[in-house]
Amino acid sequence: MRALDNRAMKRKIIYGFGMTIDGYIARKDDSMDYLKMTKEGEAVMMEFFSKIDTIVMGRRTFTVSRALQKEENTPEMPGMVNYVFSRSMKPGKRKGYEVVRGPLKPFVARLRARKGKDIYLAGGGQLARSFLRADLVDELFIGLVPIMLGDGLSAFPPSFPQRDFKLTECKAYADGSIALRYARVRSKPHRAK
Amino acid sequence: MRALDNRAMKRKIIYGFGMTIDGYIARKDDSMDYLKMTKEGEAVMMEFFSKIDTIVMGRRTFTVSRALQKEENTPEMPGMVNYVFSRSMKPGKRKGYEVVRGPLKPFVARLRARKGKDIYLAGGGQLARSFLRADLVDELFIGLVPIMLGDGLSAFPPSFPQRDFKLTECKAYADGSIALRYARVRSKPHRAK
Repeated sequence: MRALDNRAMKRKIIYGFGMTIDGYIARKDDSMDYLKMTKEGEAVMMEFFSKIDTIVMGRRTFTVSRALQKEENTPEMPGMVNYVFSRSMKPGKRKGYEVVRGPLKPFVARLRARKGKDIYLAGGGQLARSFLRADLVDELFIGLVPIMLGDGLSAFPPSFPQRDFKLTECKAYADGSIALRYARVRSKPHRAK
Repeated sequence: MRALDNRAMKRKIIYGFGMTIDGYIARKDDSMDYLKMTKEGEAVMMEFFSKIDTIVMGRRTFTVSRALQKEENTPEMPGMVNYVFSRSMKPGKRKGYEVVRGPLKPFVARLRARKGKDIYLAGGGQLARSFLRADLVDELFIGLVPIMLGDGLSAFPPSFPQRDFKLTECKAYADGSIALRYARVRSKPHRAK
């Protein structure tokens, strides 16, 4: 049991995003103008960010979020470590982030070996799929918004193997969005009799 | 106001289905073996079916549900009118169902002109997309199950225009599935000043 308990204590990787009813995280042009931040939503995000200290994202998500930060003049989150997965950018540390490359498993193993809070997988869908293929997503944190875009960037582009989850939280907000949390259920390791 | 009220009283078209976290209504081979019926789920379905008297489905959904009915020896629902949209089957009445063709708008207008309960759009995704394109979906009734398939038949295949909804119900069940109901929010008709 000790081994299992230790494993449960490890830093978790949480894939978090706002999703439309039809499964999109953004419009085709990367915009997320349909997401409206409310006081309630802000409180939920604050609470979430208080429990993570590391953000992992793909190159496209990085580019979009940088542009948004600049536009809205958002301050950097102090003490947050940012990793950007990219095949086109040169790996290495920059001001406020580090560009990294796969393979994912040894990268995540190194992150988990360090002490720290949980790790936020900020997307996008392409990077999330790579994490799901490697079965490295421990939790989902979905803000389900009451809209269909009809087309856009998918939160879960195919394909990857079946992954089972259990629902750990479901909360509806006044604006019609729902906060959903799921934890990955992995089959138990085979026990010797 | 009277016109609006009358409109609100009209028979609604409800697109209902079990959906995985990653947006699928079935595996690629049409199977839905991951859906487990519970007592709670059965009660929810019974309640739902008590308020509809007409089912509209695509040819593929029809074929799958017929096979399931045969396999499980499910009795026909008494008083239920079934329409099957197909381009390959010959239009006309059969025992227990009627094969129909588009265009959708006049078909739905005829259905709505008759007195009756609400209309269940049973899918699949292809037919739902046609209904969404024509803006004929009034409600969604989604059973969100805590699993990702990684690939499968999409509940909302692209593309169709943006559609806004409001959340009318959100209920979590013991098995980790969630019942979600949404109502279509259409922009109000322009008022003369």
